[in-house]
Amino acid sequence: GALGGLGLALGLWRRQAALAAAREDEEEKELRQRFMAPPVSGLRELRRRRRELRSRMELLIMETQAEVCRALAALDPGVSFAVDSWERQEGGGGISCVLQDGEVFEKAGVNVSVVSGHLSEEAARQMRSRGKSLKAKDGKLPFCAMGVSSVIHPKNPHVPTMHFNYRYFEIEEADGTIQWWFGGGTDLTPTYLNEEDAVHFHKTLKEACDKHDLKLYPKYKKWCDDYFYIKHRGERRGIGGIFFDDMDSPSKEEVFQFVKSCAKAVVPCYIPIVKKHCHDPFTPEEKLWQQLRRGRYVEFNLLYDRGTKFGLLTPGSRIESILMSLPLTARWEYMHNPPESSKEAEILQVLRNPKDWVH
Amino acid sequence: GALGGLGLALGLWRRQAALAAAREDEEEKELRQRFMAPPVSGLRELRRRRRELRSRMELLIMETQAEVCRALAALDPGVSFAVDSWERQEGGGGISCVLQDGEVFEKAGVNVSVVSGHLSEEAARQMRSRGKSLKAKDGKLPFCAMGVSSVIHPKNPHVPTMHFNYRYFEIEEADGTIQWWFGGGTDLTPTYLNEEDAVHFHKTLKEACDKHDLKLYPKYKKWCDDYFYIKHRGERRGIGGIFFDDMDSPSKEEVFQFVKSCAKAVVPCYIPIVKKHCHDPFTPEEKLWQQLRRGRYVEFNLLYDRGTKFGLLTPGSRIESILMSLPLTARWEYMHNPPESSKEAEILQVLRNPKDWVH
Repeated sequence: GALGGLGLALGLWRRQAALAAAREDEEEKELRQRFMAPPVSGLRELRRRRRELRSRMELLIMETQAEVCRALAALDPGVSFAVDSWERQEGGGGISCVLQDGEVFEKAGVNVSVVSGHLSEEAARQMRSRGKSLKAKDGKLPFCAMGVSSVIHPKNPHVPTMHFNYRYFEIEEADGTIQWWFGGGTDLTPTYLNEEDAVHFHKTLKEACDKHDLKLYPKYKKWCDDYFYIKHRGERRGIGGIFFDDMDSPSKEEVFQFVKSCAKAVVPCYIPIVKKHCHDPFTPEEKLWQQLRRGRYVEFNLLYDRGTKFGLLTPGSRIESILMSLPLTARWEYMHNPPESSKEAEILQVLRNPKDWVH
Repeated sequence: GALGGLGLALGLWRRQAALAAAREDEEEKELRQRFMAPPVSGLRELRRRRRELRSRMELLIMETQAEVCRALAALDPGVSFAVDSWERQEGGGGISCVLQDGEVFEKAGVNVSVVSGHLSEEAARQMRSRGKSLKAKDGKLPFCAMGVSSVIHPKNPHVPTMHFNYRYFEIEEADGTIQWWFGGGTDLTPTYLNEEDAVHFHKTLKEACDKHDLKLYPKYKKWCDDYFYIKHRGERRGIGGIFFDDMDSPSKEEVFQFVKSCAKAVVPCYIPIVKKHCHDPFTPEEKLWQQLRRGRYVEFNLLYDRGTKFGLLTPGSRIESILMSLPLTARWEYMHNPPESSKEAEILQVLRNPKDWVH
């Protein structure tokens, strides 16, 4: 009868709902295993358009965030990452993971953002000044930008600060063509010079680059030394690494594979150095020198860093995620000049005259 | 005979030399009493052109430097000001007085600079954008700029940070006319709000202004709130004071007298507040909040302050004197939000919505 039919329909509906719930549970589980939080675009949406490069890039930056956070957390078991998912009113959002005041790390931040909308006039002007044509339709340039960026400030002055950032940009022009490019880099800022660490860091990056093109490492190593320059001090921020922007050849697929290699190199570049030195003894004088170097880090980030400036000037940007790169503490002493042939003078020498660490 | 004549001449020369030496000793003594170091233009040169406004202004900034340094040093007897006289290759120089890591003051800097030369293209462009015509002769604009500037960061979180700056500018145009103006201001940055102190500070400034024109205080109080704005935070740097620029009326003499009143108000504005609170007990939590506020101070100075940016971009400028304004130590915590109706939230409220302290 009608009642039996209704019972059958209800049963079917219940079974389907249970299946859907189970599938969602599975997805939840997978998310928890793979990522720090659900991706901005949603896992189902990313699966639907799995062949598109921006989906693959979003998965790569999410994986990189999780890989790096887990590797860091394993070294600092007393604290854990605070994970914040945030939305941007103009479109998109991000996931910020921050670990603060641990035993090993003073402040470690790994941030993913996936934003879209229309390019501001100022942003378009800056991009055109780098040689892009960018023909707007009715004055509007729809864009999509995503990236993972991170700064790790350890407590021990014998463990260097590390920064990396990998990003992808798409802009739709008036005639419907899509301009796209990748940018990024990984660089190291030690308080004291350790040549073995410097060689390990650069060698790991060079190997990642060399798999794709032997010209990449030398070019991007120099670009890094040129970019992280604190002009008023005549010093680089650190001992470099690689840096690149506007990379759009040989092909989208090949550049993506290169960026993937770089992102996968972050953990092997840096984690062995942290492990090696995080229990090194240090003096109050060494801690003080670290704090003065932190001051220079702040000077670079607030005065020169394009990403920081761009972020602070972009309406609706998340200030806390942008300024996550600043150290927990920093120091400025008037006329501090380390004595000649001290360990402090040694690192300054390298910051003033960058060296080649691998040939 | 010839020998007797020579003897007489020698005697005369000796007496004149002795008189000159005595006069120089007198001048030396006067210098030591009045100033922290010999003035950039030389005391004799300043005496020779004593009626010119730039000589009177140079003496005023030198006196202000000495007055403020002495008042501060008297409160922190364990340490003393390091005094550095420096020259600028392009013309002129300065005197930097810095006291660091005292009992009362974390870092106190009082800087005088008197520089001349030709305006850089960038500087001229900035000034024209503020409405100045500035017709150059053969592309050159001879200028002379002088000022006293100071930032005082105390240790105790119940003693506010204070900043002041008074400056004079002259530019010679193609037809020989001299464009001139004064600028300056005094402002207070407390870690915690003390209404009595805020009223005392603003009242003292208002009295200095009111002697000259009743319109000045309200106008320059508002200018101060507008200028010291940390846009990305939606906060002012502090609870304000006065700020002005391009002041060139009613007359050179009257503006100079106004600037003199403001400069003379620095000590009575600030020193009573330091005396009142420098022995206040404080908790580690209060010290931490002070360090976070110091971080905001750094953000303003490196991201927004025109003087700092202008200085860092000017060739031959003295970096250590420009960055003297940065605190000894600062702190950045991710997502620090003080609890509602805490003392920390109280000051934030005032920084977000400036108040009128005197009517």
